[in-house]
Amino acid sequence: MTDDAGLREACGIFGCVAVGNWPTELDVAHTICMGLVGLQHRGQESAGIVTSAGMSLFNIKKGMGLVGSIFQDDDLAKLQGNLGIGHTRYSTIGCSEMINIQPFVVETLHGLIAVAHNGELVNAKHLKDKLLRHGVGLSTGTDSELITQLLTHMPDCGEPYGANWIARIKKAMQQTLLSYALLMMHGDKMYAVRDPFGNRPLCIGKIVNSSENTSDEEEIIGWIASSESCAFSGIGAKYYREVLPGEIVELSREGIKSHCIIPRPEAKLPALCIFEYVYFSRSDSILEGQLVYQVRKRCGRQLAKEAPADVDLISTVPESATPAALEYARELGIPYGEVLCKNRYVGRTFIQPSIRLRKLGVAKKFGLLAENFHDKRIVLIDDSIVRGNTMKPIVQLLKNGGAKEVHIRVASPPIRYPCFMGINIPTKEELIANLFPLEELASHLGADSLQYLSIEGLVKATQEGIKNTRMKGEEKDKVEKNEIGHCVACLTGEYPVKLDW
Amino acid sequence: MTDDAGLREACGIFGCVAVGNWPTELDVAHTICMGLVGLQHRGQESAGIVTSAGMSLFNIKKGMGLVGSIFQDDDLAKLQGNLGIGHTRYSTIGCSEMINIQPFVVETLHGLIAVAHNGELVNAKHLKDKLLRHGVGLSTGTDSELITQLLTHMPDCGEPYGANWIARIKKAMQQTLLSYALLMMHGDKMYAVRDPFGNRPLCIGKIVNSSENTSDEEEIIGWIASSESCAFSGIGAKYYREVLPGEIVELSREGIKSHCIIPRPEAKLPALCIFEYVYFSRSDSILEGQLVYQVRKRCGRQLAKEAPADVDLISTVPESATPAALEYARELGIPYGEVLCKNRYVGRTFIQPSIRLRKLGVAKKFGLLAENFHDKRIVLIDDSIVRGNTMKPIVQLLKNGGAKEVHIRVASPPIRYPCFMGINIPTKEELIANLFPLEELASHLGADSLQYLSIEGLVKATQEGIKNTRMKGEEKDKVEKNEIGHCVACLTGEYPVKLDW
Amino acid sequence: MTDDAGLREACGIFGCVAVGNWPTELDVAHTICMGLVGLQHRGQESAGIVTSAGMSLFNIKKGMGLVGSIFQDDDLAKLQGNLGIGHTRYSTIGCSEMINIQPFVVETLHGLIAVAHNGELVNAKHLKDKLLRHGVGLSTGTDSELITQLLTHMPDCGEPYGANWIARIKKAMQQTLLSYALLMMHGDKMYAVRDPFGNRPLCIGKIVNSSENTSDEEEIIGWIASSESCAFSGIGAKYYREVLPGEIVELSREGIKSHCIIPRPEAKLPALCIFEYVYFSRSDSILEGQLVYQVRKRCGRQLAKEAPADVDLISTVPESATPAALEYARELGIPYGEVLCKNRYVGRTFIQPSIRLRKLGVAKKFGLLAENFHDKRIVLIDDSIVRGNTMKPIVQLLKNGGAKEVHIRVASPPIRYPCFMGINIPTKEELIANLFPLEELASHLGADSLQYLSIEGLVKATQEGIKNTRMKGEEKDKVEKNEIGHCVACLTGEYPVKLDW
Amino acid sequence: MTDDAGLREACGIFGCVAVGNWPTELDVAHTICMGLVGLQHRGQESAGIVTSAGMSLFNIKKGMGLVGSIFQDDDLAKLQGNLGIGHTRYSTIGCSEMINIQPFVVETLHGLIAVAHNGELVNAKHLKDKLLRHGVGLSTGTDSELITQLLTHMPDCGEPYGANWIARIKKAMQQTLLSYALLMMHGDKMYAVRDPFGNRPLCIGKIVNSSENTSDEEEIIGWIASSESCAFSGIGAKYYREVLPGEIVELSREGIKSHCIIPRPEAKLPALCIFEYVYFSRSDSILEGQLVYQVRKRCGRQLAKEAPADVDLISTVPESATPAALEYARELGIPYGEVLCKNRYVGRTFIQPSIRLRKLGVAKKFGLLAENFHDKRIVLIDDSIVRGNTMKPIVQLLKNGGAKEVHIRVASPPIRYPCFMGINIPTKEELIANLFPLEELASHLGADSLQYLSIEGLVKATQEGIKNTRMKGEEKDKVEKNEIGHCVACLTGEYPVKLDW
Repeated sequence: MTDDAGLREACGIFGCVAVGNWPTELDVAHTICMGLVGLQHRGQESAGIVTSAGMSLFNIKKGMGLVGSIFQDDDLAKLQGNLGIGHTRYSTIGCSEMINIQPFVVETLHGLIAVAHNGELVNAKHLKDKLLRHGVGLSTGTDSELITQLLTHMPDCGEPYGANWIARIKKAMQQTLLSYALLMMHGDKMYAVRDPFGNRPLCIGKIVNSSENTSDEEEIIGWIASSESCAFSGIGAKYYREVLPGEIVELSREGIKSHCIIPRPEAKLPALCIFEYVYFSRSDSILEGQLVYQVRKRCGRQLAKEAPADVDLISTVPESATPAALEYARELGIPYGEVLCKNRYVGRTFIQPSIRLRKLGVAKKFGLLAENFHDKRIVLIDDSIVRGNTMKPIVQLLKNGGAKEVHIRVASPPIRYPCFMGINIPTKEELIANLFPLEELASHLGADSLQYLSIEGLVKATQEGIKNTRMKGEEKDKVEKNEIGHCVACLTGEYPVKLDW
Repeated sequence: MTDDAGLREACGIFGCVAVGNWPTELDVAHTICMGLVGLQHRGQESAGIVTSAGMSLFNIKKGMGLVGSIFQDDDLAKLQGNLGIGHTRYSTIGCSEMINIQPFVVETLHGLIAVAHNGELVNAKHLKDKLLRHGVGLSTGTDSELITQLLTHMPDCGEPYGANWIARIKKAMQQTLLSYALLMMHGDKMYAVRDPFGNRPLCIGKIVNSSENTSDEEEIIGWIASSESCAFSGIGAKYYREVLPGEIVELSREGIKSHCIIPRPEAKLPALCIFEYVYFSRSDSILEGQLVYQVRKRCGRQLAKEAPADVDLISTVPESATPAALEYARELGIPYGEVLCKNRYVGRTFIQPSIRLRKLGVAKKFGLLAENFHDKRIVLIDDSIVRGNTMKPIVQLLKNGGAKEVHIRVASPPIRYPCFMGINIPTKEELIANLFPLEELASHLGADSLQYLSIEGLVKATQEGIKNTRMKGEEKDKVEKNEIGHCVACLTGEYPVKLDW
Repeated sequence: MTDDAGLREACGIFGCVAVGNWPTELDVAHTICMGLVGLQHRGQESAGIVTSAGMSLFNIKKGMGLVGSIFQDDDLAKLQGNLGIGHTRYSTIGCSEMINIQPFVVETLHGLIAVAHNGELVNAKHLKDKLLRHGVGLSTGTDSELITQLLTHMPDCGEPYGANWIARIKKAMQQTLLSYALLMMHGDKMYAVRDPFGNRPLCIGKIVNSSENTSDEEEIIGWIASSESCAFSGIGAKYYREVLPGEIVELSREGIKSHCIIPRPEAKLPALCIFEYVYFSRSDSILEGQLVYQVRKRCGRQLAKEAPADVDLISTVPESATPAALEYARELGIPYGEVLCKNRYVGRTFIQPSIRLRKLGVAKKFGLLAENFHDKRIVLIDDSIVRGNTMKPIVQLLKNGGAKEVHIRVASPPIRYPCFMGINIPTKEELIANLFPLEELASHLGADSLQYLSIEGLVKATQEGIKNTRMKGEEKDKVEKNEIGHCVACLTGEYPVKLDW
Repeated sequence: MTDDAGLREACGIFGCVAVGNWPTELDVAHTICMGLVGLQHRGQESAGIVTSAGMSLFNIKKGMGLVGSIFQDDDLAKLQGNLGIGHTRYSTIGCSEMINIQPFVVETLHGLIAVAHNGELVNAKHLKDKLLRHGVGLSTGTDSELITQLLTHMPDCGEPYGANWIARIKKAMQQTLLSYALLMMHGDKMYAVRDPFGNRPLCIGKIVNSSENTSDEEEIIGWIASSESCAFSGIGAKYYREVLPGEIVELSREGIKSHCIIPRPEAKLPALCIFEYVYFSRSDSILEGQLVYQVRKRCGRQLAKEAPADVDLISTVPESATPAALEYARELGIPYGEVLCKNRYVGRTFIQPSIRLRKLGVAKKFGLLAENFHDKRIVLIDDSIVRGNTMKPIVQLLKNGGAKEVHIRVASPPIRYPCFMGINIPTKEELIANLFPLEELASHLGADSLQYLSIEGLVKATQEGIKNTRMKGEEKDKVEKNEIGHCVACLTGEYPVKLDW
């Protein structure tokens, strides 16, 4: 997907708890900061970190921009404590105020809590109405505040919970089934939670003493929870396992503890967003026990089977489509080569282009490697097409650069429906797959042919590699017994739950 | 009072409603901005403005620093609407986060509300506990949020109020008797409210069409509410009247309307903070119908009677003590002259002074006009003494500069008790009047004598000029019948209500 | 003078040399920073400090805004060295670039030099042409760069000077006779220089060990040079003496040394800008041995003699006219009182006022103390009138506030001519004294009468108190023999030198 | 090269002239801004643009950071004019002051000039000495200022040139033979110049009216000069030709004109920096008529011939080594696959890492795609190795991730000598090729083998594709007759000219 205005993931969340007593061996604030840098691809417009130095004192730092520009040395020095959570996000229009940056912190009857979440509550309107009726004034308009106030007061049921935050989280989860992965911090404990459908990813890692000796027993100095495991290598952590759909995992200085798994209604399957595999997650992340990169490769292989092409060169729109393109080429035995060179800095230019430059469109972003494809028939692989407004000028560029034929192959099916679970998808009217019959799409884009991967092909490529690794004993059993299922609502229009607002 | 770390007023509040239909003749955002500039002496560390362009859309801009640096032309352009409220404040330690800047805005079941207040709730802890017990998570730790949530849900009484905001305000006022002056905005109406004791000032002004002809009937184009009337001249407004203790006044495009006056318990007297006259208010403000400057003059006159001195020159610590000093001199028939020249820029320097410069202390702030007082006996008038840590080096400066004698006369009584109603007074242990017997204070400060104004003298100087002006008819009657009383708790330790936390 | 767009001084300069060896007892960077704060009234838009830690390394920090906001703790920590110079300035249109901020630093054949100056070279065009003809490319368009390049290469005379910077300064001074006070730093020496006419002020102070015992021999730990002595009290310095017109004084760790005095041509008198007394200098500064405040008082007394008035109250436009007003009142035996209260924050607001607010004009800046002057005849003293565009609305304000009569008395003569020596005076066409006959001016301003101080009166008030104090021996002799004369070109049109460009 | 502290190119320069009369069809400021974005890889710490709206007025904007964050819409609106030049650079220690940001602008006897350059003058010390002896004070310490002052005054030869800027440029070029590519703007003309050895790249493009009809005659609306042609696609420009070594090309509204070619001494060959092909230039740029990407491919092919390996997988250190890796794999018929996933955001984090995180080193930057290489023998291709301090932990990462063998192949020869021509190369003692015998390097890095491309191989890969394209007629002849040669000084220690400082 090359379109800046294409799909956007809302958030990345990251938490860290040091094991043992204060002062801990683990540098909690630095670890969270670098963890967020590892999740930066999930949101680049603001970030925040809250650490806890005890029951009644949270250290907070939030800001606009990239993680690396928000947190300075003196900020990290102030973010003391032995546990903390962080968040990085895209802001959407009207919500770029500092007040909306997560984690969200409130004082409750039972002390301070901090909440960071990724996802979008499908029944947010209903929950908000409940809270307002209860007399709570809401100051931000974010789902994060809804969740936080929901955890705080449990409007439906009087107040039987007291300081039992696990009971509160369970109750809140029963009131909203998706979509969220969230981290909640209270006192010296952190809770890592995924909605019963597991729509948003969340996994757990451990940090071991780097001066470990060679004995089997390594010393664990900290536990982390992260939207994606790609954040682990940057902080020296090892993948432990996923938080399961509906699960509440407690992380504390004593270690990790799984509290319960809130069941899905009506024997429904899990519904991890399949676009985490297609586009959102970094290719070196592990989801459901498999490397995302491998899924993308299998998509390429499947696409080669479903939609081969007789061409001279296979190439990619840099760079998330590269694994699929390499594998598509290998499967068909056709040479792979690069045809476009991406200028990474264009995306960071916010000036209003002049009329002349606006017409150039995507050309601003790509340089041509014309000698690589001159007079050749090319297949150009993209991972997905949303609006199609960048694919069209790319085809034009390649044709002007001397390509004899340009065939588009998309390593995922046509996107036809909006997402209400945290992904910023354009309206149905903007999705190019809804605007033209498939057979006309190629000519609309100026291409010689265009074919998508089938939904079945995508699901097969996704599900055939799922296994659950790197655990032992009881936890391993629980993980392995987890059922398999994915949300393909944006492809089929069939949402995991009925949307009735 | 020359001490930067002396008394600090917490806030100034300012609201404006344009009369008639949109687009109104009145420039609401500019008016509020300049109004806040007029209240800048009440708080210089952050400010915010919220305007309303209709039921469901508030325009908000907040920032750290002086009003003039926060609001730029494009900010004001975005602050559209026909009414709005603003706030300027000192931040106290740990509260300088953007999140704490007023006005406070929340969404309620009945639409958005915005609240700006000046003061400190004496039963804040009790109210907070109620809110937390009701399950409201509090995100800021400010009284403003307490008031806002209190207005939103009325925890004690179910919810008989619905969108009747006047009933809600009344109920809230009954739950907290002081100290607050507040402005609340909802829909196209604004409510200006003072606590039943009238501890913090709040008054109303009107803006008339500047192109008015000479006929008696001037056209009113807007109503304003402001902590002090000194903000009026800067925006072309005319003083109308005070909001009375306990009164709720509605300002809207239809004009102003007094809704009710919440009574004080047990036939108690009003308790406007007497230090508004002594120090906080600007001398050109009108409180209780009298010019603050006149009260300060009378304090000087009274001080001359109570504590005359046989000297050659009367002078002042620039510049809030000047009215008292001029009048003290006139009463005793002794020449008045300037002895110190203040560098206004020192206060805006935040660098850590070197040890050598720290020793200079107050000398950094004042230049000597030594030829004016060489070999003379001086009375130096100050409006108040808090810690005394600047008066001591000033006396030293003057003696070094050639003063034969330096006699201190303070135009208010010794401050001995903390304030819990919105004024940042040092702890009892830091108040110099608690550290030394009065008869030793002069020698501690290096002065030849030191005398304070008596409490009776201050009260007399304050109360003898109260009248209520510039109104007609029924409103005038109501204002004039208002009883007279002032809070002198920091002088006597007798607080308007029992403090039981 | 109440007009923001009135006269503006261009600059303040400040230098400091620590006595003895490194690490010196004196905190050079802090001292310069606080010294510039003491000169802040001479320029508020940018500032810079250069310190020298040896022959080949200068530490530099410059910025836009007030001194207190430019220099942070870490900046001062980096500004190491045992001597340094600083500068604070107004920027004029088109020159607000960082590149134009002084001090100006260049590398020369003989090492780095830094130059800070106050003033305007009357033959700048001629000098610039010389430099350009010599092949020097000029990068800033400032007089500071001209002076610096002039010092560097001496275009007229080959290069007989080498590293003899005193010879270079002398040669440069011969090429441009006014107007400048300048500080130049090279190696471990600083040179303090005034033009032969002494048009801009510059004086010398010493810093003694604050832990001095009572013996006569105090230990000097540093020498300073400053545009005005009002900067001394803030840094614990004592006034030593003025730099004389045409004098080059060297300051170094060995102490101070007067090198020479460049004579004026044709037996002309010195020409210190008389408006330093009237308006620019702070009233606690010493010029030519006398306190500026005393001159302002004498102006008031002289004005009372030349232009008395039969009124009930004498008042002032706050606040530079206050000394004259107090003395005018005393001389006539009429009560002095305050009628206007100034809002110090208005000047720091940069938003474009709405049309309605623009009409309010000066009212934005002043609050009325109406009860002080109701039904009275007032004399309002101002120190000077430039455009008159603020005096008119002030008179209107006072009349509206109930003044029976308003008589204007100006404690200086009419300004009729532009200044080419560093003061930003409006064009002749904008000077109100050129627009109306004097006798019509009062009615133009809405006043009942208006009278200026005579030129003779101003000169008399200025010159009758000149003495030279606080020195001993030979230096005292030299200072006392200095002739007396002042530049009144803006009043008479007679400039100290012929202007032929 | 994966090392952040490896080689750094100093600068990118870009100029644009609109054809025809003002107001021109071409958006000059936008074009320069987007042109600089296209050169951003050549310098990311500061940038500046100067446009000319006529003889005596230059519009200037400079700032620190990425181009996209420096230039806002209102900046571009102010950068009016029909021609302009821009610059983007790395700052080196001590030079990050705003004052050092190019383009450098000075006023000369013949009007304003602006200069932007890329390169480093090998005889800078000599030139500086000349200028200082002539009495010019230098304010920045940059080569840009040296060049500018050199152009301004021609110290050796009196002043026979007047406003003949071409004569001045020629004279300046004769005084300093390398290294520079520069753009100079004066009046309505711009000069694009390369040193006689052509050490730094500079090429010319044309912008044609985008609404061109299909006739042969396209309408040229502007000419541009740029360090690299990769900047062309982003602004809709077409490659025209290179500026030849020693050539002065004038760009103006009349079009382009080649003025002369300053010859090299002693029949020496040109000396374009060979690392422009290896690393600095973007792969879609055209140098000497060939696509840089093609050279990199040929390096990979040559490396396969010189240093084949019997492995299971060929991979790359993302991402400049990818073309070589793909071609190396193809040549040997071994599968190519990705093994590392780069986190692009790590480089933008400036916080001091904690000790624990510092130990992680390069792992912060790369995620592993372990399933791609588990149990395989890998060749890892890098384009070059400088210090080797990132290659060592990468090898470790791969081994830990399950690689059976890791063989390093470097697509360029060992770097052994410093560069004095504009590339920031570490000292000899830091270059890993100087620290270990080649045969020990593999084991030092933990690799199973390590081989470099030979110097002859690199030169062959570079030179065999040179041709000169896209021109007609006389200009084409001149370009084609240009000799071929490259600077390999950092590999051999043989510099194009004798370095005698």
